[in-house]
Amino acid sequence: MQLADFQTPSLVLDEAILKSNLQKMSERMHRHGVSLRPHLKTAKSADVGRLAVDGEAGGITVSTVAEAAYFAQRGFRDITLAVGITPEKLHRVSVLISRDVKLNVTTDDVSVAREIAKERDGIKAFIEIDSGERRAGVDPQSETLLEIGKALGNKLLGVLTHAGHSYNCRTVEEIKKVAEDERLAVTTAAHRLRAAGMSCDVVSVGSTPTMSHVENMKWVTEARPGVYMFQDLFQAAIGSCTRDDIAMTVLSSVIGCHPWKNEVLIDAGALALSKDRSTAASNQDAGYGLVLDIDGRPSYGEAIIERVSQEHGVVKGDGLPFDKLIVGTKVRIAPNHACLTAAAYDKYYVVWGGRQVINEWDRVNGW
Amino acid sequence: MQLADFQTPSLVLDEAILKSNLQKMSERMHRHGVSLRPHLKTAKSADVGRLAVDGEAGGITVSTVAEAAYFAQRGFRDITLAVGITPEKLHRVSVLISRDVKLNVTTDDVSVAREIAKERDGIKAFIEIDSGERRAGVDPQSETLLEIGKALGNKLLGVLTHAGHSYNCRTVEEIKKVAEDERLAVTTAAHRLRAAGMSCDVVSVGSTPTMSHVENMKWVTEARPGVYMFQDLFQAAIGSCTRDDIAMTVLSSVIGCHPWKNEVLIDAGALALSKDRSTAASNQDAGYGLVLDIDGRPSYGEAIIERVSQEHGVVKGDGLPFDKLIVGTKVRIAPNHACLTAAAYDKYYVVWGGRQVINEWDRVNGW
Repeated sequence: MQLADFQTPSLVLDEAILKSNLQKMSERMHRHGVSLRPHLKTAKSADVGRLAVDGEAGGITVSTVAEAAYFAQRGFRDITLAVGITPEKLHRVSVLISRDVKLNVTTDDVSVAREIAKERDGIKAFIEIDSGERRAGVDPQSETLLEIGKALGNKLLGVLTHAGHSYNCRTVEEIKKVAEDERLAVTTAAHRLRAAGMSCDVVSVGSTPTMSHVENMKWVTEARPGVYMFQDLFQAAIGSCTRDDIAMTVLSSVIGCHPWKNEVLIDAGALALSKDRSTAASNQDAGYGLVLDIDGRPSYGEAIIERVSQEHGVVKGDGLPFDKLIVGTKVRIAPNHACLTAAAYDKYYVVWGGRQVINEWDRVNGW
Repeated sequence: MQLADFQTPSLVLDEAILKSNLQKMSERMHRHGVSLRPHLKTAKSADVGRLAVDGEAGGITVSTVAEAAYFAQRGFRDITLAVGITPEKLHRVSVLISRDVKLNVTTDDVSVAREIAKERDGIKAFIEIDSGERRAGVDPQSETLLEIGKALGNKLLGVLTHAGHSYNCRTVEEIKKVAEDERLAVTTAAHRLRAAGMSCDVVSVGSTPTMSHVENMKWVTEARPGVYMFQDLFQAAIGSCTRDDIAMTVLSSVIGCHPWKNEVLIDAGALALSKDRSTAASNQDAGYGLVLDIDGRPSYGEAIIERVSQEHGVVKGDGLPFDKLIVGTKVRIAPNHACLTAAAYDKYYVVWGGRQVINEWDRVNGW
């Protein structure tokens, strides 16, 4: 089947680009002597997951209990749930995961740590460290860090951070600095736990921007980037990749051809693309997405989706070729933020360059 | 079962508020002598649809082929697909819909109108009119209007517009003016088609803001509002409703309690709420949503979600009661834009006030 035969909007994944992205990150982490534990919150697909752990230790990272269950049922046996756990979810995970799955949960809370300590032996826990994002995690210098460690007892596996503030960087130099902050925060926490007589086997960092440019990973043991697999316009704008590295696009149809307004209307709107506007804060503002041709090439110049409503996208550009964009024409949209765009779909149509669909891969959504 | 027993994030629908919203809109349209053809792109649920057509003629509006198929399979027999159709989707709809379903499609394109004219008799078409939104539709004074009408031949059912620019209004007076623009555009188009010897049985308008305040519906035959069923913070901010009229909320858990930053972290982030920031342009900016207690009451004051990442929401507020917001506490979030928030879920947990779950209703997503 060809992409031209598929209904729109649909999600397209170029396996050739995906594999190239996976290989680059693997090589980079091997060079640093660090385990790659890919974060599958973006892909949410066992097929992508199997490619992502190829040549690695096999461990993966997820964000939700639904993802943990999905991957466990498909043979993944070492899973880190890297979003702060609640007691109720702890029980769900505990019941869900069979004894031969190593499940690592995450907390920054003393009371929750006490609950984790009561769980069965298969569960281990990370203490979440705030390395500057100011979202979740404890200060690596805090007393709370040691309290949580003591409360976890023999369930303590290590420390974990996510340098989400790398998304605020606009130069590679800034990203390198955040990567070093990330390393310092988490290795400081590890040293303090050990100095207090606790073990801290895993020292885990990870964001796609920092892992794309990090120079020093001393005392770090693993990395958990995720969106590097697919990349997107925002990652291209901040220098994690180029636009040619974007593996995931949305197949869409022209539903209105309006030369009198210098506009084309497509059937990819707020639901099909998400309302993410992350590129707005970069010097490559791509509206709600960049319009490519059905082969994924930038044939229409800087044609971007300027406005969206639920099921409409309004495309603007210089010299749009209206004769090639009649109603029914299929285009592909490179997304601002792959993680959010992908979540509207339950499968990928897989191509290897071009427009021949060679596979369908499922996805897990919801919670 | 109680809401406290459900996993998070989940979607909660208060049937008591829903029914009150439905009744108010029905009464308003009856007073104007206009058919109400509810738009089900927000609810995407047969159960909600049946309540919404109760006391009406039974026709509904949808935005996608997937919605058309879902509602047709569940007994809805008169469906308007109100987003510009493509030839390919026309064939899908034609195959999909059995002969006893009246299916009305929408176009603003002469070539597509010629394709529609070739289809089986069960299909009728609306010509889409631009009443000032400048998204889709033809100018009511244009020559194209008449060309499309001629191309449709006996498939022409009427004219249809959506005054989406009512979302830019900030006062009821402005909304009333847009409602009159909407009426004038579509009735002008209808008169011109009739003057040219064509029939134009249905003259259709609709947006929740305009239908909440419209004063004059002369020569209009039907209305297609949608989000009025659930309402949301944006509709409250522009005066379509009050915050007490919001029927749909997201059940969420506290996953981080951080008094030292005056913040609480919840498990409803960009996927669970959407990245819609429509209230930002109003004088009631609610961030990514307003935090209510598990009973849906505003017990935490103006506690709003200031930042989101994929699975995290950062809650800020004045005097947050941290002792009542420990990790694991369940809260409910009123959304900025119900249509986008709902799309992340495949079902509603239905309550009638309070926290007792009395039903589960499914939803259709995707395309």
